[in-house]
Amino acid sequence: MAHPWQDTTLPAPVRAADLLARMTLEEKLAQLAGVWPGSTGDGGEDVAPLQHEVAEDIDLDALLPYGLGQVTRPFGTAPVEPAEGAARLAALQKRVAGANRFGIPALAHEECLTGFTAWRATVFPTPLAWGATFDPELIAEMAAGIGATLAAAGVHQGLAPVLDVTRDPRWGRTEETIGEDPYLVATLGTAYVRGLQSAGVVATLKHFAGYAGSRGARNHAPVSIGPRELADVVLPPFEMAVRDGGARSVMAAYNDLDGLPAHAHRPLLTRLLREEWDFGGTVVADYFGVSFLELAHRVAASPAGAAALALDAGVDVELPAVRCYGTPLRDAVRTGAVPEDLVDRAALRVLTQKCELGLLDPDWSPPAPPASLDLDPPHLRALARRVAEESVVVLADTAGVLPLRPGGRIAVVGPLADDPAGMLGCYSFPRHVGVEHPELPLGVDVPTLLDALRAELPGTDLVTDPADVAGADLCVAVLGDRSGLFGRGTSGEGCDAPDLELPDGQGALLDRLLATGTPVVLVLLTGRPYALGRWADRLAAAVQAFFPGEEGGPAVARVLTGRVEPSGRLPVSVPRDPGGQPWTYLAPPLGHLSEASSLDPTPLHPFGHGLSYTTFAWTAAEATATALPTDGETGIALTVRNTGTRPGTEVVQLYLDAPAGRYARPVARLIGYARVPLAPGAAARVRFAFPADIAAYAGPDGTRHLDPGPLDVHVAASSTDVRHTLRLSLTGPSRTVGHDRRMRCEATVEPLGPKRG
Amino acid sequence: MAHPWQDTTLPAPVRAADLLARMTLEEKLAQLAGVWPGSTGDGGEDVAPLQHEVAEDIDLDALLPYGLGQVTRPFGTAPVEPAEGAARLAALQKRVAGANRFGIPALAHEECLTGFTAWRATVFPTPLAWGATFDPELIAEMAAGIGATLAAAGVHQGLAPVLDVTRDPRWGRTEETIGEDPYLVATLGTAYVRGLQSAGVVATLKHFAGYAGSRGARNHAPVSIGPRELADVVLPPFEMAVRDGGARSVMAAYNDLDGLPAHAHRPLLTRLLREEWDFGGTVVADYFGVSFLELAHRVAASPAGAAALALDAGVDVELPAVRCYGTPLRDAVRTGAVPEDLVDRAALRVLTQKCELGLLDPDWSPPAPPASLDLDPPHLRALARRVAEESVVVLADTAGVLPLRPGGRIAVVGPLADDPAGMLGCYSFPRHVGVEHPELPLGVDVPTLLDALRAELPGTDLVTDPADVAGADLCVAVLGDRSGLFGRGTSGEGCDAPDLELPDGQGALLDRLLATGTPVVLVLLTGRPYALGRWADRLAAAVQAFFPGEEGGPAVARVLTGRVEPSGRLPVSVPRDPGGQPWTYLAPPLGHLSEASSLDPTPLHPFGHGLSYTTFAWTAAEATATALPTDGETGIALTVRNTGTRPGTEVVQLYLDAPAGRYARPVARLIGYARVPLAPGAAARVRFAFPADIAAYAGPDGTRHLDPGPLDVHVAASSTDVRHTLRLSLTGPSRTVGHDRRMRCEATVEPLGPKRG
Repeated sequence: MAHPWQDTTLPAPVRAADLLARMTLEEKLAQLAGVWPGSTGDGGEDVAPLQHEVAEDIDLDALLPYGLGQVTRPFGTAPVEPAEGAARLAALQKRVAGANRFGIPALAHEECLTGFTAWRATVFPTPLAWGATFDPELIAEMAAGIGATLAAAGVHQGLAPVLDVTRDPRWGRTEETIGEDPYLVATLGTAYVRGLQSAGVVATLKHFAGYAGSRGARNHAPVSIGPRELADVVLPPFEMAVRDGGARSVMAAYNDLDGLPAHAHRPLLTRLLREEWDFGGTVVADYFGVSFLELAHRVAASPAGAAALALDAGVDVELPAVRCYGTPLRDAVRTGAVPEDLVDRAALRVLTQKCELGLLDPDWSPPAPPASLDLDPPHLRALARRVAEESVVVLADTAGVLPLRPGGRIAVVGPLADDPAGMLGCYSFPRHVGVEHPELPLGVDVPTLLDALRAELPGTDLVTDPADVAGADLCVAVLGDRSGLFGRGTSGEGCDAPDLELPDGQGALLDRLLATGTPVVLVLLTGRPYALGRWADRLAAAVQAFFPGEEGGPAVARVLTGRVEPSGRLPVSVPRDPGGQPWTYLAPPLGHLSEASSLDPTPLHPFGHGLSYTTFAWTAAEATATALPTDGETGIALTVRNTGTRPGTEVVQLYLDAPAGRYARPVARLIGYARVPLAPGAAARVRFAFPADIAAYAGPDGTRHLDPGPLDVHVAASSTDVRHTLRLSLTGPSRTVGHDRRMRCEATVEPLGPKRG
Repeated sequence: MAHPWQDTTLPAPVRAADLLARMTLEEKLAQLAGVWPGSTGDGGEDVAPLQHEVAEDIDLDALLPYGLGQVTRPFGTAPVEPAEGAARLAALQKRVAGANRFGIPALAHEECLTGFTAWRATVFPTPLAWGATFDPELIAEMAAGIGATLAAAGVHQGLAPVLDVTRDPRWGRTEETIGEDPYLVATLGTAYVRGLQSAGVVATLKHFAGYAGSRGARNHAPVSIGPRELADVVLPPFEMAVRDGGARSVMAAYNDLDGLPAHAHRPLLTRLLREEWDFGGTVVADYFGVSFLELAHRVAASPAGAAALALDAGVDVELPAVRCYGTPLRDAVRTGAVPEDLVDRAALRVLTQKCELGLLDPDWSPPAPPASLDLDPPHLRALARRVAEESVVVLADTAGVLPLRPGGRIAVVGPLADDPAGMLGCYSFPRHVGVEHPELPLGVDVPTLLDALRAELPGTDLVTDPADVAGADLCVAVLGDRSGLFGRGTSGEGCDAPDLELPDGQGALLDRLLATGTPVVLVLLTGRPYALGRWADRLAAAVQAFFPGEEGGPAVARVLTGRVEPSGRLPVSVPRDPGGQPWTYLAPPLGHLSEASSLDPTPLHPFGHGLSYTTFAWTAAEATATALPTDGETGIALTVRNTGTRPGTEVVQLYLDAPAGRYARPVARLIGYARVPLAPGAAARVRFAFPADIAAYAGPDGTRHLDPGPLDVHVAASSTDVRHTLRLSLTGPSRTVGHDRRMRCEATVEPLGPKRG
């Protein structure tokens, strides 16, 4: 063994430190930056804000002798055949490793929110749909599948999951969030992290932090927020994904929080993340986020100033390409304006991560490019189908028309009835990059809802012309969003909405369809919830899917026909009216209907709502003990029985209401849930372990407190459909609850078999 | 002299302390509460939220032997003839003073935002209209007039001004604010305080603090805010009114800030207000605000708990009537749960104020009831007219139709063309109380715009039927709001809007009027700005007035005809689109148009905008010195000349842009202004004293900092119509700027006379 850093028996940080000690300033800085091949000069549309203004052509030959930290989006910048892309990446890695004296390759990263953002890769449902599944195991399985395709292609780091908690559904990136509840986002997001990293791929938590709260839901706009809301709503998903999920990378957010940009936010990036949560991975910039400190936030006067701020705050890696962390930062270190220690700190983290990934091993070589590479293999497509199926939410079946009965004439109309675009979120390759290449096929098969209904309803006369609606027995109206970037869609990054009116005048279309008198089943394929109050009394049924992915058409069709039982639950409230935003169910009493305001924010369909085709009976919930110490735990249990004639899945939800405390607190917040699949007549015992810690709430410095006193736990089928309330009592002294606190009410479901007698 | 407390040669706090020492606990508590005669049991509508749920009948006979702190709304609860009301109040005071062993009368308070909220009292323009005047001297004169009527009626304290800075114009109380800029609110609000208190009446600053930022603009909803925004936007008006204006009372706000209700907010009510600002007056509860700690915010479990929280935080007086500060607080003190020191602290403040008002003087007796009391005398009506005239904003005159030419046929239509309701804000007696008494005359003469145009345009054929619009030469469309309380209007307390669409379908009416082809002059009489982008290119002209008061009709008519030159400037931005709120001009770069969002929040008419019928030429601005120390000052001067043939008033505005700093900061914020009235051909030299202090900005603990570096001062005719930019440079060390800082750019205007030669 020539050097300690090459000794694979030593711990990664030790090897990384040895290597760091051998590096020049330039070599260390080179590890802190990425290059983005193919991102400039082609005149295409941006996939990142200001991409064409800020991105600069890089002289790779001049750069590579010092090494290279990251390769940015080798597959997600322009369409490339998967095997060819993998070969190109392998060749680039060979070049990178061969050009520096230590033979260190770059770490390649890609987007992977709804699957690998590469041409011909499986497109999974968007995160709002994950939220609707309430199924962490399935999301972990999906993420493991995504990770495997990334790894097979030579990608080391995936820029997902998004852990922003929806604060205003007008925001275009709502589709990228898991929903409006921190616990739901935390548990499903952590499951994604575990799944992705189980494939050896680094997960990246984004956007740290506060991004979803921008004023007026305008992307990048200032965020008015105080420390308590930050601690109680915004941070929990990140904390769980770091502490429970072991996430290895975190991405800083574009926004400012109360005036301090996240990329310059030392209290968040260092004090909280590193010192309190003990995070040992890398913090990466959002694309151009370091430059934005100078160009957008104006808290720095130069690229060097921006680099100094970001590095000091705790941003280790500048992405997507080097602008501030290169020559400007080098010069600032040389003049003493920036301590070299800060460069060392960041470089050590990067090298440690490369070491963990095996990139510093003496026998490392770029993976042999596969002869063929299927990024959409059948088992991933099947997984995409399962996630989609579990995510479909039946909002209402007022007229009892669901499941659809075969036979007769059904009109299937609306702009998304036969358009794959309604299935795909904005981080899918076809919507993210493909829209700039209109000549390019989608790359994956995306059956539309019409295609799928044809397959599912063979004996039915399906008509597709709006003129045929009046003569049909039923109308399936397929409305919703087209995702896109920066105004090139109705949902997605930079596609913010002024209100929650159905986009593109589709409300008027719905009015016309209803005017025919034919019963209308509304199917929404969207990236955010839309106001449906205007039609609520007139729709025969309403079904909500959130960009359900390449298998979304068949999934929705099967739920409509009943071949698949509906089990999705709303991860966001569906409002009654298009105005009056923002609103969240996660509000103290005065955030709800109040005598003091003429505006009633009560949603049409609440968070957690979703119908089944069968019926369930719930027993009263019982607590192992109703009094528990402020550092104790109790058990909560109930029995759920399928009392109908069809199989079905109930989603048992726990909500906490803390009646009195030092601060105004939500009247209901999700603290646990369990999916309970039950055959007709079958029952199951559902048990939750309730730790007192979960009732802790933040004080003005972000520290969590727990006071003795009463607590109400609602056992519920939605945030407002409370089946039973358990009054618990916390006893003993007030506590300060640290970052070792228990964050979950773990659930177990024990089948009891069908009722006897 | 029997006792020191009766010795009028001693300072008020000394006298009050002496009196306090002689009091029992019950007597001290009695000074901390009000009674509200006539507020319960009549089945009428509420004038305060939850009034009929929370208000309790009080046994006055049982209460009075201990004394009484406050009498609530003796004139503003039910209609009463002014002289009779004054006689009743005097009789009540005699009873109060006669029933307690010290002979102390109550302090009587009333609402007085748009004038004395009493039947037959002058109705002045609403605060948004004051904002449009940019004329502190006039507002001070108005407030002095209001104070005189209050004093004449026996009222000691007025519950005004509202110093909330508009953060979301959908909020119903926007009409009660002075606008969206803290400096404008601060300077005009402080002028009001000085005026009112010059009449011997205590001004009450409300609502302390943060109330205007409620989520979704729903009244009372939670406020997401951090310490920097609080310090830089919300607090400056209160600080100026306390420190410069000498305000003697502050009212706590209904809302919570980041979860901590304002009525329980010791950092605000005690640490900041008392310890840093050295405030020596009383802090009063908003109506039922102490009870709301229990009933609405749920941070207390009982009335006693609510009392303990509020008293400890710094609320001295419970209003409108005693619920928590009576028996529950007495018992809590008796059991030791609440230290009696806290009661003493509050009672000392109340007694000190009564002493300052002369209510503890040995020779005090209730004022002899006047035989007649004119609350709307000619000089107040003339003052109401002047404020209204200065507040009318000409937004646009695209077709050059203003001022209106007499002759021909003019259609004057729209729901507010001939309705006094469009003139009166929600705190005027007719809208606040009178709507519950439909049989009651308005009490004051309120000419409508139609009335006034008839008087102003004698030779013109004025037609009023919409069917006549097509045949008219011009159409004056008079649209807008009706103010009211809690849903009984389109603007006002509790009348929050889902968006900024013109209310009640008036947009459709405007479409129909425009479709006739007749040129349309839109006149808006509103309590908030509404989106006008849809019609901007088609309107001949647009004029905005904000509930201009009893003389609003003649004022608007005179501006339309040119008998009065328009000089109003927008205190709020007029948006282009109805959605996308909240937005404020007071935003860093990313709060404005951004490539990252599909939403363009750029207003149709910016803050500070308003047209004249003449033209002005501005010279370049000059600075006495362009470099100044961080604790220094410089002068800024320019010359403005009326280059037209009509007289007119220009409003010169200074905006600060601090290009680089530690936090993202507004690209423009108002720091100074001057009204410059000029005859045709005349010029004036306008000078501003610019103290470096004014560029200070808050850090995360609310402390203000000032760093050396460049500053841009825009000399402008609106927030976007910049005529000249001065680049200044701050030199010397960084400074922490304390609460003794200079808060104003004082302006002087020196007439130069007409141009010679």
